[in-house]
Amino acid sequence: MSEPPVTVLGLGAMGSAIATRLRETGHATTVWNRTAARIGPHAEAGATAAASIAEAVDASDLVLVVLLDHAGVRERLEPVSAELEGKTVVNLTTTTPGQARETAAWAAEHGIAYLDGAIMAVPSMIGDQSARLLYSGDERAHAAAKPALESLGTVEFEGTDAGLASLKDMALLSAMDLMVLGYVQAIAMMRTVGVPAVTTAEEVRAWLTRMLPHGRELAAIVDGGTYDTGGQSVDFDRAGIASLITASREQGVRADLLEPHRKLLDELAATGHGDSDWVRVIERLTIH
Amino acid sequence: MSEPPVTVLGLGAMGSAIATRLRETGHATTVWNRTAARIGPHAEAGATAAASIAEAVDASDLVLVVLLDHAGVRERLEPVSAELEGKTVVNLTTTTPGQARETAAWAAEHGIAYLDGAIMAVPSMIGDQSARLLYSGDERAHAAAKPALESLGTVEFEGTDAGLASLKDMALLSAMDLMVLGYVQAIAMMRTVGVPAVTTAEEVRAWLTRMLPHGRELAAIVDGGTYDTGGQSVDFDRAGIASLITASREQGVRADLLEPHRKLLDELAATGHGDSDWVRVIERLTIH
Ligand SMILES: NC(=O)c1ccc[n+]([C@@H]2O[C@H](COP(=O)([O-])OP(=O)(O)OC[C@H]3O[C@@H](n4cnc5c(N)ncnc54)[C@H](OP(=O)(O)O)[C@@H]3O)[C@@H](O)[C@H]2O)c1
Ligand SMILES: NC(=O)c1ccc[n+]([C@@H]2O[C@H](COP(=O)([O-])OP(=O)(O)OC[C@H]3O[C@@H](n4cnc5c(N)ncnc54)[C@H](OP(=O)(O)O)[C@@H]3O)[C@@H](O)[C@H]2O)c1
Repeated sequence: MSEPPVTVLGLGAMGSAIATRLRETGHATTVWNRTAARIGPHAEAGATAAASIAEAVDASDLVLVVLLDHAGVRERLEPVSAELEGKTVVNLTTTTPGQARETAAWAAEHGIAYLDGAIMAVPSMIGDQSARLLYSGDERAHAAAKPALESLGTVEFEGTDAGLASLKDMALLSAMDLMVLGYVQAIAMMRTVGVPAVTTAEEVRAWLTRMLPHGRELAAIVDGGTYDTGGQSVDFDRAGIASLITASREQGVRADLLEPHRKLLDELAATGHGDSDWVRVIERLTIH
Repeated sequence: MSEPPVTVLGLGAMGSAIATRLRETGHATTVWNRTAARIGPHAEAGATAAASIAEAVDASDLVLVVLLDHAGVRERLEPVSAELEGKTVVNLTTTTPGQARETAAWAAEHGIAYLDGAIMAVPSMIGDQSARLLYSGDERAHAAAKPALESLGTVEFEGTDAGLASLKDMALLSAMDLMVLGYVQAIAMMRTVGVPAVTTAEEVRAWLTRMLPHGRELAAIVDGGTYDTGGQSVDFDRAGIASLITASREQGVRADLLEPHRKLLDELAATGHGDSDWVRVIERLTIH
């Protein structure tokens, strides 16, 4: 085996998929998990089972961390900071940008090369190029780890600010969350007249597929920065959103999901921006 | 000309496009608009300019109404209820389902056949089959008006409850609104680290294009009604949304758009549904 050894800390659904893939692509793989029961299958398949985190860390210069959350990462890595010195930690645990930066600062203090990662995929996609894995932090560590990381999916380096991978992940997840809530709102409204959810979902899918490209126009207005494009104004949009909210309530559906948009528009109108392009709501979101 | 005569009340952006298309497809078209200046170009092109609404209504058995809002519709139609008796009114003005039902009840009282419409298109699309126009209300009026309405775009009849066309329109517009806010949220987060809005928009578009089909899975869970699919639980989703909200605020972006989701999940957790599939949020939206 000419591939460099890799250690994987955490054998949950995602950590298991990652450890399996690394082993299958020829890396000597050492694994550790808090609950020992999860280690067995990996050991049987040819991975090295470590009795402790310290032992696991000792086995490889590249250590991947795939725990549930930031608290677990800090709890488990701090006791082995000496053992990690001079090595590379790639933290694939989902964290906020601020948490990623915090771990990066801690790593820098201890002479550990740190790369933060964000996995835009489910475990079954690991190993396929359709799995996108975003990384940010130490650029040299990224270059060195890249060949191993490429066996997990498409590698994208976002920049040296360790928070960038998480930030992009969370920005895209936020967009997805709101889109999914759009399905929920439409389904809730239509089922009040007996339309099955799957029927509405198909309508929504077809409609949003056509509407998706308009995001580019909206973005161009934001980049322009003047919000005087003569497009849909704040006042016009207020009337439109008010109708949506009224329609929802008339049907016995709470309009909670639609309310923040109205509130942001009301703030713009109250500060003299009724004639602005409605997209100016983004300036209300941003705390200047 | 063998096509039946049509009257169009309201020559704003949408009414003008509709009147033009009807004239061009061979209908003797009579037009009226509150502000006379908008009538001239139509008269020059061959439409009949009516001096009053009563005169306009007299000219055709099929009367299309394309005013700004419900208040204008009631204000303008009530004085000519006698003239409208026995005729068909197709109201293409955007209204809520409740307003559509109110106008339908008024029409029924006055012996007017009433069809409510919702236009899922911009004026430039009128005449193209990509323009979807939804109708609901009097089924015989729909059948009679259909040939004329087909020259405006694809005709879809939603049912005899006059509110159905508006309801579907508003359900789809709500879904679009939330999706568009997803773009706004992601752009707001990414521009805090200097990423141009158009760059983020392209990322969001690609990502949402891949995620759109998942609406069907979510809908199947709603139709199932048990929320015990073993998928993403309320408690799991709460942690995820909390991270998105924290990430947004860390970057100096208000999380107002994401908060309602958290609030609905908190309500579910507080009522003992922490283990349910997160999609149960739809039951909190619905006022039972
Ligand atoms: N699954 C996905 O679809 C997906 C997608 C993208 C990103 N991710 C991210 O990948 C990471 C792992 O997810 P997963 O799906 O593998 O989760 P999981 O199946 O719930 O596994 C969680 C893992 O974290 C370990 N753990 C939790 N708290 C710990 C602590 N305090 N000390 C030591 N170990 C601890 C668990 O150990 P035990 O076995 O001892 O409980 C287990 O190995 C998460 O940050 C998740 O957000 C997952
Ligand atoms: N434009 C679109 O992309 C679009 C898409 C889908 C649906 N719609 C719907 O189509 C309808 C018309 O929209 P539009 O774009 O044509 O709007 P618009 O360009 O603003 O025109 C509004 C029209 O309504 C008339 N009006 C307003 N209040 C009135 C009143 N109290 N009495 C008599 N006339 C009155 C105006 O007359 P004056 O000329 O005298 O002001 C004008 O003819 C709206 O309900 C809109 O929601 C529009």
